[in-house]
This record gives sequence, C-alpha cells and structure tokens, in this order.
Amino acid sequence: MNYCEKWWGWGDLSQSFPKDSTQKILNLLPSQWLQKEVDASIPLAITKKIEEIELPGIRLSNQDITHFKEIVGEKNFCTDKKTRLCHSFGKSYVDLIQARDKKIRFSPDAVIFPEDERHVHEIIAYAHFQNICVTPFGGGTSVLGGVNPQGTEPYQPVLTLSLRHLDKILKIDAASRMADVQVGILGPDLEKQLNSHGFTLGHFPQSFEFSTLGGWIATRSAGHSSNHYGRIEDLVLSLKVATPQGILETKPHPASSCGPNWNEVYLGSEGSFGVITQASLSLSEIPECKEYLSFLLPSYQEGLNVLRAIKKNYLSPSIVRLSDPHETQFMIALSDDQPCSKSSRAFLKNAWRSFPRTFPKNIYLSFGQKLKKISQQQASLLILCLEGSINEVSTLKSKIKTLCKKGLSLGKSVGIKWEKNYFLSPYLRDELIHRGVLLDTLETVTSWTYFEKLYLETHKALKNSLGQDAIVLCHISHIYPTGASLYFTFLAQAHDNPITQWIRMKNDVTQVIMNNHGALSHHHGVGQDHKKWIYDEKGPLVMDQMKALKKFIDPKNILNPNKLL
Amino acid sequence: MNYCEKWWGWGDLSQSFPKDSTQKILNLLPSQWLQKEVDASIPLAITKKIEEIELPGIRLSNQDITHFKEIVGEKNFCTDKKTRLCHSFGKSYVDLIQARDKKIRFSPDAVIFPEDERHVHEIIAYAHFQNICVTPFGGGTSVLGGVNPQGTEPYQPVLTLSLRHLDKILKIDAASRMADVQVGILGPDLEKQLNSHGFTLGHFPQSFEFSTLGGWIATRSAGHSSNHYGRIEDLVLSLKVATPQGILETKPHPASSCGPNWNEVYLGSEGSFGVITQASLSLSEIPECKEYLSFLLPSYQEGLNVLRAIKKNYLSPSIVRLSDPHETQFMIALSDDQPCSKSSRAFLKNAWRSFPRTFPKNIYLSFGQKLKKISQQQASLLILCLEGSINEVSTLKSKIKTLCKKGLSLGKSVGIKWEKNYFLSPYLRDELIHRGVLLDTLETVTSWTYFEKLYLETHKALKNSLGQDAIVLCHISHIYPTGASLYFTFLAQAHDNPITQWIRMKNDVTQVIMNNHGALSHHHGVGQDHKKWIYDEKGPLVMDQMKALKKFIDPKNILNPNKLL
Repeated sequence: MNYCEKWWGWGDLSQSFPKDSTQKILNLLPSQWLQKEVDASIPLAITKKIEEIELPGIRLSNQDITHFKEIVGEKNFCTDKKTRLCHSFGKSYVDLIQARDKKIRFSPDAVIFPEDERHVHEIIAYAHFQNICVTPFGGGTSVLGGVNPQGTEPYQPVLTLSLRHLDKILKIDAASRMADVQVGILGPDLEKQLNSHGFTLGHFPQSFEFSTLGGWIATRSAGHSSNHYGRIEDLVLSLKVATPQGILETKPHPASSCGPNWNEVYLGSEGSFGVITQASLSLSEIPECKEYLSFLLPSYQEGLNVLRAIKKNYLSPSIVRLSDPHETQFMIALSDDQPCSKSSRAFLKNAWRSFPRTFPKNIYLSFGQKLKKISQQQASLLILCLEGSINEVSTLKSKIKTLCKKGLSLGKSVGIKWEKNYFLSPYLRDELIHRGVLLDTLETVTSWTYFEKLYLETHKALKNSLGQDAIVLCHISHIYPTGASLYFTFLAQAHDNPITQWIRMKNDVTQVIMNNHGALSHHHGVGQDHKKWIYDEKGPLVMDQMKALKKFIDPKNILNPNKLL
Repeated sequence: MNYCEKWWGWGDLSQSFPKDSTQKILNLLPSQWLQKEVDASIPLAITKKIEEIELPGIRLSNQDITHFKEIVGEKNFCTDKKTRLCHSFGKSYVDLIQARDKKIRFSPDAVIFPEDERHVHEIIAYAHFQNICVTPFGGGTSVLGGVNPQGTEPYQPVLTLSLRHLDKILKIDAASRMADVQVGILGPDLEKQLNSHGFTLGHFPQSFEFSTLGGWIATRSAGHSSNHYGRIEDLVLSLKVATPQGILETKPHPASSCGPNWNEVYLGSEGSFGVITQASLSLSEIPECKEYLSFLLPSYQEGLNVLRAIKKNYLSPSIVRLSDPHETQFMIALSDDQPCSKSSRAFLKNAWRSFPRTFPKNIYLSFGQKLKKISQQQASLLILCLEGSINEVSTLKSKIKTLCKKGLSLGKSVGIKWEKNYFLSPYLRDELIHRGVLLDTLETVTSWTYFEKLYLETHKALKNSLGQDAIVLCHISHIYPTGASLYFTFLAQAHDNPITQWIRMKNDVTQVIMNNHGALSHHHGVGQDHKKWIYDEKGPLVMDQMKALKKFIDPKNILNPNKLL
C-alpha cells in the first residue's frame, strides 16, 4: 500500500518541496535556527528504518481477530507493523515530531478495511459489544490528532477503520447535478470521475491529493475555491452513517423544513456519532473559463476593504487570498525571476534581494505612478481566481479591477504559480522539521468587526510564545458576508523539546484567539488538539446536549474517543 | 391586544381580500359549491360572538398561577377568555373550521408574556418542575397546528408562552452586517428598523405581517425572496435558547469547523428542544434597485428549463414564481382590465372572458408572432424580481430575457400587482370557508429528476381525493441547484364534515408526495399535521437520536408536545 511509504511526513515519496525554494527559505532563516548536528542532505526517510521502530503490543483477543476477519475477509484485516505504523498518527506538527521517535506511543491494534457499509456497521456493532475503540481513517491528513488511535483506558484495544475501499461513485444524476459517493474516495479520484461527466465538486483543501470525502465531511472542511462552490457543508445533501444501532440515512432534499437538519449533526462529528459511509453531493458544471488575477494593494487595510466590497456586491471569485504584508514580503522573497511582467519583475526582484532586511519605506521604480504610492512594508498581495462562462468571468474581472483600483495589477502569472505550488507547500514542513525548524499553521475566523484586533493579537501571541525572531505570516483565504478567515503560518527555531514548545504556543495562542472572538477552527476541525477549548467554543449546554446524544449512540464511548467531545 | 380581534380568521380586521376579486372567484366556482344556507353578506366576525364560545376549564393550580405571576408580573399572565381563545389555535384550514365551533376543544390554561429571556427560562424551569406543558407562540400563523396547545394527557395544564414582548433589536453591527434580535419581533417591525439602518433581512414569508422571527427559525421558514437572500437557516448566525437546563447560546462565527453546527438542531425544532429567545442575523444592504419581470412561457416544461438555466448560471433573482398552466389561467381570469400593456391587455381580457370554459387551443391575436405560438392551455406565467445595484439588475435582466426568449414578455406590472396582493391572498380563505368552500395549500420540494412525476402525481391525488371538479393550481417559488419547490393551492366543495374530508385528503396526498421523493415540507414545518410522516421523512435512526436528545433536554416532554417528535 503505497500510502504507507511516507508515514513519517507529508504526502507522496515521489514529491517534495522544490529544492531551490527550500534553499531560498533556508537562506532567509537566522543561521542559528538550523541544527548543526543534522545532516540535512540525508532525507529523513533514510534516517529512520521501519525495522528500528517499536510499536505497542496488540491488545485484541484471538476471538476478536477471528471475528473481524470473518466480517471483512483475511486480506482486509491487518496487524503488520507497517500498516499499523502508518495509521498511528496524522500529519500534525506533533505527529511528525513523534514519528521521529523510535518508540511510538499509540498505534492501532489492527487496521480493518471494510468493503461496504454493511461491513462498517458489523465492525462497529461488534466493537461496541466487545468495548473496542474504533477510529475512522480516511486519508489520515488530520493536523489536529483527529485520527490518532487512543482508547479511553490503557488496556482497551483500538481498531483503526480505514474507509479506503469505500471509494466509489455509486451514481451521478446529471439532471439534478447530484452524485452518490462513498466517503473513502480521494480528492483526485473524485474530481477526475466527476470531470469526465462534465461536473466538479469544487472542493480543494490543501490536503486534496491525500484526503477523502469522509474526512472533509467529518471535519467540516473548506477548500481554496469554497468562496464560490461553498464549504463541504454546503455541498452535502444527505448522508449514510454506520452507528452501533444500524445504518442511518438522511434524504437529499434540495431544502426542507422538516425539523432539524440532521446532516449538520454529522458534519463535523469527527467519528464521535458513527462512521459516515456515503454522501449525496451537489455538483457544479465544470466552468467554461477560469482566470487568475493578482494585485499588489497599498495596505492590508485596503485589501480588507476590497474583500468586504466583494461580498457586499455578491461577487464570488472562487479563490480569494489576501496575504498580510509579512506574507507578501515572504512570497516576494521566494518568487523566482520570471514573474508577471517586465515592470513587476524589477519590483519583485528588488524585493527579493532586500529580504529579510528592512525594505526602504517607499520605493520608486520606473513602472507607473501606482507603485510609487505602495510602501513595500505595507504592500499586501491579493490573488483571485474567477470561474464561470467567458462572459461571466469578463464581467466579474472588470468589477474586481474597479474595486482594486488602488492596487497594482500583477496579471495572471502570480496566481498560476501559486496554484502550482499549493499542493507542494505542506512538503516544506518535512524539510524544515528535519533541520530543526518549527513550521506550523493555525487558522480561525471572525466577524469583520473583530478582525483587526484578532489579527494583531494572534500575531503578537505567536511572537511572544515563539520568540520575537519568529516569522509570522498571515493570509485570508475565505470571505463571508459577516467576516473572514485568518490563516497563520509561522516559523521559529525548534527547542530541544519541540512538543513542549508547541503545546505552550498552542495554549497561549488559542486562548488569545478565543478571547478575541475567533472561532476555535475555521476548517481544520477539533480533534485532540482543540478539545481543551471545545467547552468554551460550544458553551456548556450545547456540550451537555452533544454528550447526551453521544451517550445514546455510543454509551461505551468506543467511537473515536478523546476527539471533539 | 389587537392581534386577538381576528382569532377566527387570517390577519387583521381592517384588511380583507379585495371584494371584486372575491366576486370574480365566486363566479368561477361551480354554483353548487356555495352553501345556500350561508348568508355570505354577513361577515364571519359578526356571526360568532366571543360570549357564545365555550373554552375548556383551567387546570393550573393557584400555586402555579401565583408563581407564574411572580415571574412575569400580574399584567403579563392572562387567563381571560379572549386571550386564551386567540391562542387556542393557529391558522390552518382545520383550525379555522374548528374556530367556527361553539365549543373549543383545546385552549391554553393561561397565556404568559415573559419580558426577557430570564423570564422564559424561569417559566420553563418551573413548568418542568410541575409538569406543565409549554407551547411557544410567536405570531400564531402556523398552518400545521404548530402552536396548538395540547398536553400529553388530558388533565395536564398547558401554558402558552407568547414571545410578543421579546420584540427588540438589541444591536446592529453595521461593520459586519449583523444584528442581535429578540425573536418575538414581527416581520414589519424588524424590516422597518433594519431599513432605517440601510439593511434588510430579505425574509418575506406570506405570513410576514403577522409572524415572528422566532416562528421563522423554529419552522425553517422561507420567504418570497429567499432565492436571493437565503432561507432563514442561511441567515441565522447564532441563537439563544431557554431550556430546562438554562440558557443555551451559540457563537455567531461566519463559519466554523468546530464540530456539529448546533444552530441547525434548533432551526426547525418547533419548540421541542427549548424556546428560542434571540438570534444573530446576517443582513444585506437595501438594494439600490428592484425590478419585476414577467413572461408568458409557451409551456410549463419551458418554464422549468428557464429555472434550471437560472440556477446553472448562478443567477439569483430574489423572487421566482412559475405558475403551472392551471394557475396561469386562474391568474389571468382574476386579472383586471389594466394589465401590462395594450397588446397583452387584449390577450388577458380574452382569457378572462373565456375562463373557466376550455380555451381555444391556439389563439391568434394581433400582437406579435410569439403569442401565436403560445397555446393558452399550455401557457405558464413566470414572475421574477431582480434586486441589486442598477448595473447588476440591468445585467441580470438581459441574461434572464435571453433565457426567456421563447416567452412573451409582460413587463413589470404583473409582478408589481402580484406583490400588492401577496399578503392579501390568505384573506381569501376566510371568505371561501364562510361560503362552504374548501381552500387550502400544501407544499413540498424535490430534485429536478423527480419533479415532473411528483407534480403530476400530487395533482392527480388532489383531484382524486377532492373530486375531479376541484381546482388545483401549482407554482414553483423556490429554486435550488438540485431541484425546486412545489406549492399547490386547491379549491373544492366542502363536505358536511370538512375536517374528515380534509384529513382524508391530507393522508392521501401526503403519502403520494412521500412516495414520489417529495419532502414532507419545504417551508411550513411539521407541527401536528405532518407528525404522522416524520418517521418516514427522517428515518428511524435519526428519530431515535432526536428523541434521545429530547429526553435529555425535556425528560417530562413538557416542551410543545405532540409536535414534530
């Protein structure tokens, strides 16, 4: 199973963050950050052989093993080291640090691969009976410990239930633009098959290549184009869910006033209320035309003005990405020498050369009046993608150009290049961890009213926790009528005990986010890492109600315990 | 309290369905439908004096009464006949028939008017302790028995909790286009206050003048402009709800991936899980421009093609109303002599004269080639309203005109007139009931795939149940990416026992809707009348989960029993 090859890092063995870009970033970092004792020329994969890893013992009884094999067949029940290892954690910073240890603390006793929803139900029913924990596993890309196999007590066996074989599109209803899809399907397989029928789901989280529909639903995911196509909760019409009581099914009505929308109880349920096996999805036609725009705006504030105007005017670019001045400078620094146009090339080249030294407050180059007014310390990069018919894109483009009139248009290529690297970015973390650098991200969302304070306070909290030399970048990727998301990327020198360092940072910063009206998460979910704040987020009465529902469905708390609830 | 004056019918005493239109409709009906013995010239209000009405006895103890008065004050606790009477039912056909009886079967023991959410919580907590049922009451316009005060056993007291005093906008956050609003506010008060700040909620159900925000939320309401502004569930950001355990509050994040969206559990909860007291709402700016369009399309099928194309092209007219040929003919028949334009006037006048006799298959009049191709038996009227900036409306208009190129444009006035009568239509039912005619409506929604069959089968079922001479009209008022709503209006001769007649019709037709992939309700809710099918609609496992949650929140089942669950 090739997805097991890179259990210690992101994605696929054949892919990596571009070497020259890695080098550029390394050059930007203070030299004392880089661990001298690490031989960074040796890839991490080679430094750690699977034979050297120690996993905890298997706690399942022979009877359990026999029973599970009877349900799914011998080949679909695995207790081998490699399969267990690559289902032992997700892709959080802490996961990847722990993957470097020889002794893995938590590992599933076995990994089971059901082939249909009946299997899933039988597995859960038996696990419920025998008090075995079940952790559903889609692509395993959780960055919050959502797939980490932990029971409620040390001797309780934990079974990881991989949905990898439930990977089929069962039906495409072209007339209603709907599809019935099993949740184990990976992003690219889903899109490819939908595309062949002229449709797209339009859901592209950064984990897209390695994450599954089920993972998106279980964590309320959003993708880079959700501004146009909607978040996953906007795309799910109905669900099938295996619970200890049987297989629950909702109806795919276009809308309904028949009581509570129970899909919304399972969207974001992270395996706590059952294992989602199938969904009806609302599709869109593949757009006739797709075009990137990008602008260098004179300030972050001007960028926010543009984004609010976009929502106010009901415009819906698919991709909206506004980088704060820090991220803008960082992106400029990483840009190669063939950007956009002749004129902006000079600008960007100059910017690259001056990074990370302080930029001259205002630069005067020879390409137009606008740039003269843009302070490079304030400049904010806005990337947009427009999708639709040729006419629609053309109309939208002219409206957006009007809104961005204070900015410098950088044309299409910045966006195209950004898209090219979008799925590669997560590979950078492996390279940096390997060299002793902490690189992680966190995200939140708030109303426009609280946006600025939340942005400034979170930025400050990251610096306070990680050190004033930490590099803290931020962008907005999702805009709503009432507010916008914030996505922070941060780099710092890793301490001797990077997990302690990270936990302190997470505690400090999350508390600041919560104190400043930020959501606990905009699109990553809760998992283990956000669980501590879920009472603050949901309030005690909602928590009590969710727990009462959990107790009814799963009285023994075997369904993905220690996550969410 | 002036809202009590018309306990026996719809709306306000000062309003009625236009007399000339009533007469036109009466002329259209088979004469044998009209009850000879009714003196229809005497308004119903005069035929039934409140003194003649008998209400059931009050079952509350003196201790209960004293306690409730202590909570809300003497003036806010009513046991007088008039207040009890006008909270004894909603506005369903069955309600209005029963209102004609001298003896009212179910009436609240008292009506309590809390002044703040703390009152609401205290009332519920005491009612929970003493096993007194609580029926929340907003505007009382439910057409499904949603506000009918019934306990779970005959001797159990029922308290109607009117939210009329919780009618304030607490905060408008212009920067984030949000408002915190108490749920007892009536539609016009809410809009007027929002309008004065430049905002609109854009929510206009036909009950708008007499229904409340809380009612809309508790039943997942949709209004005539929800195609553009969204249904109520799209507009609610957060909720405050009084439960026996305390006051639950969710956070108004623009979006979130922090577990299930618990707002969605309370949206449509119909009082079963607590009493909603407050909501944060997402607002829109008042549009610069609003323009009606209308088209006579050559067939219902062509109308459906247009609607699907509208969604496919992401166009969002606020009002979309496509009448089937039956409703189109009916509307033409009711139209006065000053419609649209000179040319269409002749057409419509001719149509009016020929109704209800069969139209000539094709009519040839002197206004353009298009009309020649429109068979009057197939013609379908499409009314649209466009909202936005002048530019947006103009662009949208030209796109929609292109989509409607097979139709005959009737200009603005048909839509303007329709809007004028929109809020008056429910008054017609009173007039007809008074004359022995059954007039009621029902609604559903389905995917495009099942639309035609559902439409035909429901139409047939209505005729089969009510008689082949019944008048059955249908329109679509809400379109979605995957389907559309169906709204049936039907008229028939009322039998001697109209309630039995109605129940048989409801049973027959609802079963046909359920068998043909229709939702149990698109925007009216569940209440008492749809409860019978809620297991079919939700499925047994969702019902079990909803009931488990109900049992946790409300173990004694005092919260609006016999509705929804």
